[in-house]
Order: sequence, then C-alpha cells, then structure tokens
Amino acid sequence: MSRLALVLLTRPSLEAEAHGENAEPFRFADPHSAQLSALDLGATRGDGIFETISVAHGRLQALEPHLTRFARSAASLDLPAPDLDAWRAAVEAVAGTLGDVAEGWVKTAMTRGIEGDGRPTGWALAAESADFTAARTQGVRVVTLDRGYRHDVERTSPWLLTGAKTLSYAVNRAVLREAARRGADDVIFVSSDGYVLEGPTSSVVYRRGDALLTPGTGLGILEGTTQGSLFALAEERGMRTGFELLTPAELAEADAIWLVSSVRHVAPVRELDGAARPVDAELTATMNAYLRDRVH
Amino acid sequence: MSRLALVLLTRPSLEAEAHGENAEPFRFADPHSAQLSALDLGATRGDGIFETISVAHGRLQALEPHLTRFARSAASLDLPAPDLDAWRAAVEAVAGTLGDVAEGWVKTAMTRGIEGDGRPTGWALAAESADFTAARTQGVRVVTLDRGYRHDVERTSPWLLTGAKTLSYAVNRAVLREAARRGADDVIFVSSDGYVLEGPTSSVVYRRGDALLTPGTGLGILEGTTQGSLFALAEERGMRTGFELLTPAELAEADAIWLVSSVRHVAPVRELDGAARPVDAELTATMNAYLRDRVH
Repeated sequence: MSRLALVLLTRPSLEAEAHGENAEPFRFADPHSAQLSALDLGATRGDGIFETISVAHGRLQALEPHLTRFARSAASLDLPAPDLDAWRAAVEAVAGTLGDVAEGWVKTAMTRGIEGDGRPTGWALAAESADFTAARTQGVRVVTLDRGYRHDVERTSPWLLTGAKTLSYAVNRAVLREAARRGADDVIFVSSDGYVLEGPTSSVVYRRGDALLTPGTGLGILEGTTQGSLFALAEERGMRTGFELLTPAELAEADAIWLVSSVRHVAPVRELDGAARPVDAELTATMNAYLRDRVH
Repeated sequence: MSRLALVLLTRPSLEAEAHGENAEPFRFADPHSAQLSALDLGATRGDGIFETISVAHGRLQALEPHLTRFARSAASLDLPAPDLDAWRAAVEAVAGTLGDVAEGWVKTAMTRGIEGDGRPTGWALAAESADFTAARTQGVRVVTLDRGYRHDVERTSPWLLTGAKTLSYAVNRAVLREAARRGADDVIFVSSDGYVLEGPTSSVVYRRGDALLTPGTGLGILEGTTQGSLFALAEERGMRTGFELLTPAELAEADAIWLVSSVRHVAPVRELDGAARPVDAELTATMNAYLRDRVH
C-alpha cells in the first residue's frame, strides 16, 4: 500500500472533552511504526468496529452514511458513542494527505481499548486504492457459502452482532480463501435457512427487468452504503428499486448480479457457483462512473 | 493487570530460519508501549489465533495441549505452521518473569501480520491472575444463549472457523454483556438446533451420578485443555468420563455443572437461566486443587 497516512484519535469517544479542550481530537502518526498496544482489545479480541470510505480526488464519498453506520455499530457493541465531529475531522485530515489521487480510501477503526483501561482506541488510515479495473469490467467469479446463521438471527440473537461492522472479520477472510480453493474470486453468503445475504465485504445487488434489487435489511447483514448510492442512481434513471428475501436459485435467474462496495465499487458477477452469468456491461459502466464521480 | 511482561516473536513461523540463525526467536518488549502496527490484520480483521496458558509458581500448566491446539488453530486459518519450539521458548521466558506468583497466565497470539507483508506477527504476554476465589467457591450464574450455528457446522462449513481459537472474539465478549443485562455472570452457548455447546471462554463439564461428562467434540467448539485435565482426574478417582450431545433441558437435570477454563479453573454453575442449581462443593474443591497443583 502506497501513500499511507495514519491519524490516531486522541479522544475518540469523550465528546465533551473533545470539544471542550484545546487538544486536537487527533494527531498524525507514522503508519510504519508500531502504534497499538499488544493489550488492545482490538488486537486481542477483535473487539471493535470499522468503516472504509472511498476518496476520489480529495472528495470523501458517502461519508455521512459511513459515519452513521459507524455510530450504529458502536451501539451494537455497547461501545461509547463516537464523537462524529472528531471522527469527521480526522477522516478529512488523513484523506487530505492523498492529494489529487483518483481513488483512495480511509479506514476508521475504534476498539474497546486496552483491557481494563475503559477508554476506546481510535485511528483512521488513508491509502491509495489498488487497480480494480479487471473486477469492474471483466467481473468476478463468485461461490455461495453458508454463513451458518438463520436469516432472522439479527432479531432473535442480537448478541451475535450480525448487523454491525466489527473487527472480528476472520470468517470474512476465511471464506475468500475457500473461494480461491474453489477457483473463484469472491463469495455470496447464504443463511442456514437458504436465503441470499451479502458478500464478505460487499452487498449483493441484482437487476430483474427494470428493477434494481437487493436482499432486505434486518437479515443480519450490513446496510450497504454503496447499494444506497446505486439505488439513488437507479431511481434517477427511472428504474424501480426494492428489497426482497430471495434464494440462491431465484438470484441465479436475475438478469444481472453485482457485488458492490465502497472501494472496489461495482463488480459484475460473471460466474456464480461455476455457471456463467450474463454481464450487463452498459449498466455496470454507468454505475461505476456514477460512483466514481460522486461529490458526496 | 500487574506484573505484565511481553515478548515479541521475531520469527514466529519460519521454522528453518528460527533454528538456523543466531538471532533469538523472541525478544522482550515493553508491554506498556505500542508494539503493533495499525495495519496488522490481527487488529484490523481479528485475523489470528491465541491461547491462554496458566502458570502456577513458575509451572506452565497443560502447555503441550495448548501448543497443539495453537497449531491446529493456525491450520484452520491457513496460517503458517507455528514453530512450536520457538513458541515454547518464548512462553517459558515470559512466564519466568512472574517468579513465584501462585497464579498467572501467558497469552500467545499469532496474527496474519501486516497486510501485504506475508509474515505473521506473534507475541506472548504474561500477567498475574485476578482473584477467582468467589467464582470457584460460590459459583457463577449462567444464562444459555443461542450461538446461531447448527451443532454440525464445523463439518458442513469449516470456513466458519468454529473449532479454532481465533482473535475474532467480539461475539464471545458481547454475550457476557448480554449475560450481565440478564443478571448473570457467564454464558453457555446453545446451537441453533438446540444442543449445549460451550461457554465463551470455557468448556461445560457436568456430573451425572459417577460420570463426568462434556458435550462431544466436532460440535464447532474447542477441545478443552482444562476439561482434558479434569477427565484425567475423574478417571484417577474411578469416575466414568464421556462425551455426549445433550440439550439444555438434559443439562439442567445433571447433578452438578461447571464452567472450566485454564485461568479461572473450575467455576460451579449455581444458577442456570434463573433457576438455582446444586453445587457439588467437595468435587469442585478437589478439581480446583488438582488444577492448581498440576506440574504439567
């Protein structure tokens, strides 16, 4: 990763202090030096939350939906409510180091902090993006994999944190290795009772006729910030949008399928569980251009 | 945490290099200073493994079963095989700083390292234990909570990493907060299809007549090192031991129930989902004395 920059939040959660003191809410730090304690519960228990925000020529894209989701994840984990003004300032500062880079990203992370200390740890890291041209134009090969949970687990068992974007992402990474073993690039999770959920780092979006659709919310999946942007585009173009509970067999009948996420943007699914899928090249290009050019 | 000590593994996985070079396989570091990168996949994705080993008057207890499980967890996550000689030396060195402390522990952790670097990060942290007298003698109040997964998920969906001890433990901590909200101290996980699994940081052991039992292996739960020690004790005392798939209703009919783990040792369950449970004080004390006095 080139052009790395890091800021450490000094008061990531103590709202009154962050506003009331002279101290800056963050400070720049060397991303190539050790900055975290080996006692930090982020490192020892994956006990924290994160967001990844794309940056295009200095513009932070969908920053507010990301910050809103960050705060919602914090609430799910009973973490202190993040001071969003402090985080916004930190994200803007670290993104500023990217200059006029066409595509970059900022990751925010807040952990429960050093065990016993009681104060969270927070940081924001900026980097230039990798080149995703191949995934965006040629598409990705996807396998469906069991997520292990029923589709209604967010409602029945909120302690499983399924709707939160946590640092406990070992499974989200393990499934990509399983996909590679199966000759694929990415994954669509399926609930244990047979419904399409999301990708490990993306939302599933599909087109059926003139409708752009995605699996519903409340399924123990993240509310996709990029999916939200694409629904706005679809509505501008006169398409219908909607949420629906569907099975992998129903998904396989869609006219086109995409995995959509903040940094890679829109990757058409060109193969699903070994079967070739049609790629809607025109709509894919339109969506990627729209995401690239977003001002907010 | 008092009497903290930390060692960083210098070559946690590169077996040939660890043995062949003059460099030590580890070095002492300041546990109160930052030692980890904010780019370490342990901190950003909970992508790593750990073990916690108890230390009594300088004796590392059940070290070999812990190292064996550490290596098994590494394999589950497709991490490099840890050089167990290097880890053993590191654990012994850091445990040595505890001197003649009656009860302490060492946590080993290995992460996938800095993103893109390709080499894991490893460390071992030693500390004096908290005082667990109350939990060991008076017992703990426990609630059963849905783990979300079927009991057979380890076999059907190994990418969910259920049998590995990973750093992605946000759920294991969230359930303790849920337990506290319900006026309890600890949790027994139940599979989505209704079988008793394990605690978030312990194994479930119970007595029925002259048999000491635990839920079977292969249920997506950890093979308990402490449970293994207790089965050896039970067999010395002429008790039967065994594994069985059972429901919470069947567990509630046991003569006594314990949560057992490396550092807290044996905590009798004195309340299960709000109902008082008999505590087998004599056997509890025997088991805790046995664990305390283990030489290996």
